[in-house]
Amino acid sequence: MPSRRYPLLPLASVLVVATGAAHADEGMWTFDNFPSELARQRYGVAIDSDWLEKVRLGTVRLSGCTASFVSPNGLILTNHHCVASCLAQNSTRESSLIDTGFISAGREQELDCPTQIADVLEKLENVTTKVQEATRGLAERDANERRRQTLTELEIACESTSRTSGNPLKCEAVTLYGGGQYWLYQYRRYDDVRLVFAPENGIAAFGGDPDNFQFPRWCLDFSLLRAYENGRPAATPHLSIDFDGPAPGDPVFVSGHPGSTDRQLTVAELKSLRDRELPPTLLRASELRGRYIQFAKTGEQADRIVQDALFGLENSLKVQRKQLDALLDDGLMAAKQQAESELRASVARNRALAAEIGDPWQRIEQALAVEAARRLPYEYLEGGVGFNSRLARYARTLVRAAAERPKPNAERLREYTDGFLPRIEQQLGAPVPIYPELERLTLSFSLERMREWLGPDAPIVQRMLTAETPDEVAARLVGGSRLADPAFRMQLWNGGQAAIDASTDPFIVLARSLDAEARELRKWHEDEVEAVVEAAHEQIARARFETLGTSVYPDATFTLRLNFGSVQGWNENGAPVAPFTRLGRMFERATGQPPFRVPASWEQAKASLDLSTPFNLSTNSDIVGGNSGSPLIAADGRIVGLLFDGNIHSISGAYWFDVEKNRAVAVHPAIIREALTKVYKTAPLIEELGLAD
Amino acid sequence: MPSRRYPLLPLASVLVVATGAAHADEGMWTFDNFPSELARQRYGVAIDSDWLEKVRLGTVRLSGCTASFVSPNGLILTNHHCVASCLAQNSTRESSLIDTGFISAGREQELDCPTQIADVLEKLENVTTKVQEATRGLAERDANERRRQTLTELEIACESTSRTSGNPLKCEAVTLYGGGQYWLYQYRRYDDVRLVFAPENGIAAFGGDPDNFQFPRWCLDFSLLRAYENGRPAATPHLSIDFDGPAPGDPVFVSGHPGSTDRQLTVAELKSLRDRELPPTLLRASELRGRYIQFAKTGEQADRIVQDALFGLENSLKVQRKQLDALLDDGLMAAKQQAESELRASVARNRALAAEIGDPWQRIEQALAVEAARRLPYEYLEGGVGFNSRLARYARTLVRAAAERPKPNAERLREYTDGFLPRIEQQLGAPVPIYPELERLTLSFSLERMREWLGPDAPIVQRMLTAETPDEVAARLVGGSRLADPAFRMQLWNGGQAAIDASTDPFIVLARSLDAEARELRKWHEDEVEAVVEAAHEQIARARFETLGTSVYPDATFTLRLNFGSVQGWNENGAPVAPFTRLGRMFERATGQPPFRVPASWEQAKASLDLSTPFNLSTNSDIVGGNSGSPLIAADGRIVGLLFDGNIHSISGAYWFDVEKNRAVAVHPAIIREALTKVYKTAPLIEELGLAD
Repeated sequence: MPSRRYPLLPLASVLVVATGAAHADEGMWTFDNFPSELARQRYGVAIDSDWLEKVRLGTVRLSGCTASFVSPNGLILTNHHCVASCLAQNSTRESSLIDTGFISAGREQELDCPTQIADVLEKLENVTTKVQEATRGLAERDANERRRQTLTELEIACESTSRTSGNPLKCEAVTLYGGGQYWLYQYRRYDDVRLVFAPENGIAAFGGDPDNFQFPRWCLDFSLLRAYENGRPAATPHLSIDFDGPAPGDPVFVSGHPGSTDRQLTVAELKSLRDRELPPTLLRASELRGRYIQFAKTGEQADRIVQDALFGLENSLKVQRKQLDALLDDGLMAAKQQAESELRASVARNRALAAEIGDPWQRIEQALAVEAARRLPYEYLEGGVGFNSRLARYARTLVRAAAERPKPNAERLREYTDGFLPRIEQQLGAPVPIYPELERLTLSFSLERMREWLGPDAPIVQRMLTAETPDEVAARLVGGSRLADPAFRMQLWNGGQAAIDASTDPFIVLARSLDAEARELRKWHEDEVEAVVEAAHEQIARARFETLGTSVYPDATFTLRLNFGSVQGWNENGAPVAPFTRLGRMFERATGQPPFRVPASWEQAKASLDLSTPFNLSTNSDIVGGNSGSPLIAADGRIVGLLFDGNIHSISGAYWFDVEKNRAVAVHPAIIREALTKVYKTAPLIEELGLAD
Repeated sequence: MPSRRYPLLPLASVLVVATGAAHADEGMWTFDNFPSELARQRYGVAIDSDWLEKVRLGTVRLSGCTASFVSPNGLILTNHHCVASCLAQNSTRESSLIDTGFISAGREQELDCPTQIADVLEKLENVTTKVQEATRGLAERDANERRRQTLTELEIACESTSRTSGNPLKCEAVTLYGGGQYWLYQYRRYDDVRLVFAPENGIAAFGGDPDNFQFPRWCLDFSLLRAYENGRPAATPHLSIDFDGPAPGDPVFVSGHPGSTDRQLTVAELKSLRDRELPPTLLRASELRGRYIQFAKTGEQADRIVQDALFGLENSLKVQRKQLDALLDDGLMAAKQQAESELRASVARNRALAAEIGDPWQRIEQALAVEAARRLPYEYLEGGVGFNSRLARYARTLVRAAAERPKPNAERLREYTDGFLPRIEQQLGAPVPIYPELERLTLSFSLERMREWLGPDAPIVQRMLTAETPDEVAARLVGGSRLADPAFRMQLWNGGQAAIDASTDPFIVLARSLDAEARELRKWHEDEVEAVVEAAHEQIARARFETLGTSVYPDATFTLRLNFGSVQGWNENGAPVAPFTRLGRMFERATGQPPFRVPASWEQAKASLDLSTPFNLSTNSDIVGGNSGSPLIAADGRIVGLLFDGNIHSISGAYWFDVEKNRAVAVHPAIIREALTKVYKTAPLIEELGLAD
């Protein structure tokens, strides 16, 4: 499922439905506005503030994923695919932890995940009034600028206060309902996270790309991390696991961080996605997939080092392909059109409101027409699409940071304000393997596509590709750069602008030469597109609140949400799909060939296993990428599943919730017990999770 | 430009425009219905029947392209990209004629093009009444069956008559206006075609894929073939060349074989293309492009042997990408919707007609819904998308032919009726190089995508990919097959069903095992989809004739057409694009790196060249893939250009003619003269073309 990539477009708020309120078990509710009464009516469950707090403090946000604490010693349960980067970072050309899995022999052997962090949401503060007051009466561009500064100032003040109080928290400004609400979300951050356990990819992702987003399913997509504090396992609140799992029809709650949804986009925005954004993105991804796969065939090492990138790419390719399908569905577009017309009509009937906000839908449409004219150079230069290389991204970060850090905090580009700097520094200093052949592949590919899409006569293309082919440029840059060395990166980071100016590293030279043009494109996009779209969405949010009240939930923004639903299958072409799969069927489905090859550990343990053990299950939970690793929680507050995917119909959940067919897919806790006690026999974990007999 | 691939969908008739008749210089007119009066009014030119006959007999149809006779000794002028297959067939791993070009030292050295044919349209006979009478009163499926049989019977009778008269012709049934008219087109066929001259690809396709479908342009995209009869150069009618070329604004005529347009498709058909056909086709092509490119990087030989396939793929990728863009244009869809509504309203007003034909638009929509349910297995099995390999296609042909040839002619699958057998035999017997590594690449790729799109549990996927990976299947089949040997293929062809039954060649075994299921899918598609759609289009054609008369032209069907227009540029974003380019600018644009590297022959000759020589030119001719190689003809009947491409806006010509921006792109005859006399100095050709001083 889509765990690590979100669309570039600004996100906004609230599902538009013709009837007004959310229906069925739809909804990604914020913890401050969870509809407990609705859940009680539907499932007879009592969700009180203690329950909500316990679940909130037991839920963990990882990079692009969700997780939960499952022991008082900082043990973290999440998906295998959520630790793929950590596994790849601890792998070499010769041996891949993605292939082999990893079992820590004890706490001393737990492996550093050098770019992983773990956040827990401790406090939420509504700052809507402060932000709206700061921007009142300003024109769109000025309001956009002032809004960003205000959010940065609020974050700084919040962190300063928390430090003073002796409980330092990460403060992040959060925009909900497309500008209808602003919040400060305050997290406890763990930046020392280590790998405890991961099964082999062959069982974690049994069925591979062909089975991805499918159900019935047999994936042991789980792993264990541990949060450390001051070099010792962190003392944490936690949720306990009910290893027997739920029964069909049982109510279940998903606590997690859905990454992004576009349910409240205007019709013009949806068409821009359908017509201008998704098709070229899909074509690029498809070709890169072909290049990766063919590269993998050149040898075992090549195959190993490309795995992590290929998994991520194939996942987002499947997501975006089904998103395009959803947007090409005339039924969806007609429903969106109707809902929009109704809301516009209700604004027209409210003369005071109409006089104040005018026609924000039309302003968005105009801004998107403006965007279309320079969209490609913006994406290729500022968005980095033309320079697809990790080394190029390091260089961009170093060059930008050197220019931004000396500025007053509130005047910097948002991603270089103080709140983000420790994370940037962690990523620059992390000793992660860089494979030059892979860097060359992606860089050459992206330069070639830049020439195709911007045209051979575009100034940037003329500058880059007149004297050299894309392969030659890539070989020269990758071969001549020292940026793969974290010590070298930290030297440039610490050396500031002087070090950057003096550097002759070819990627630094490139990033310097691109920066002015890229910044100009960004400024244009912020002023001419984002400022207009954000102001318009703030006004649409007002119109929607006046019509629908707050009985609605905001679009997903990779912030903490809770939903409710139940264990259930669905009907596919008239045939029922049962909500549980069992271990025995996996062995029957195994072919001996990847991606349907069962690892040796399981083949060897097979005789001792209970083949009727439930394996995966499906629920009607309203989830999306970023929810990966979320605990599935019973009414009693215990974990009864580990969410790792949605079915194929869930992908249209980006735009609307298909009550009949949208299903979430989770690992059943019983198969985790079976795995730990009979296959991997990991004594310390068996004890820590209370699985000892 | 799209020269060799046409959409799978059945084609139909007549441009639908709100105003009724064709406007501006739009129109792909049949020779029997050329609007001479309109051309006279617009350009003051007199196009009489002698002119039409001379042009018709001077125009040649190649495999997927157009050409013209340019000497009385069978010399044929066409594009370089139209002889790419012949160049590839005469190349080896070690040396590629695509790279090096080819100059015949004399007639004895002219190279065999083993799968090329050249057809000249000698006669046209309207058989509409015969076909309509044969199917009158029959239900859709029976009518569809009977129509096919009737067309085959008419072809047989026609060929028999022509043989008896001592002037044997190839007779091909042609459906125009989507069933509004049926014709027998009768061709003189030359099946001994040889290569005389081709420049290096570096100058023929200067700018490569980045410049493809662009203008201004500098491509020497021409080559020369020769038709032979009884081992000697054929005596042929011909058109002479005006090497000075046309002036801006001069009227020009394009005679050629536009491959296919979809201008009269119903809105439901256009949406099916947009939503169901183009996106998956584009994703497949994009990934295959990535695989080809990455494969090419494994060595010089790999680079050489993949060239021809990659050129074709990138060309169709660009075409289909812009076709999807066109269909995603709400303006186009709204115009189509409006024209369709108007035609439907005019039917509703004509009660007798309405009672007779009912609602054919709705019947098409229903048939497409039926198609959607099994479209993927149909494409993958019967369409061969799941078995992308030349050896697999040979095997399919051999297996099918063995079963079909013993049947009475009219009962066979259309493509195995007598008229097609000599061409099949030529292709099976042709000694063309097959590269096993490329066969494995495409086959493995297509098997992998079949598993993705049909799903791992589809019966065909279970059968093919349970015990082996796609790579293993491909290696086993390609490694074990002898079908790359033309003698072995001819042995199976001549051995008939007994030889096929006895064969253990793994591709023959595979084709045998797939045949029943593939045929079942084809039967389903013919009966449930094509029969309904064809019958409905015949009725829509009737409605259109009653409304618009015959002042309209039929959709392109790779049959001979003539259009008129003039030499002109266009306005791009407010800036004028001039209609001529000149040689000097090519040298300025050369980077020394492919695809912008000028061949050594031109660098060496540079000092002797007139840099002001016109190179390429643009016209507003209404053309499409299949027109590649068409002569651009002046009012005096002389050739003044060689069409080879359209600009980027021309691709939407599949669906409508954009008067403002759709432009054709041609090679100027002056650059051909400059090339032959100063760069290649090919004395015999200089003489044969009348270029000697």
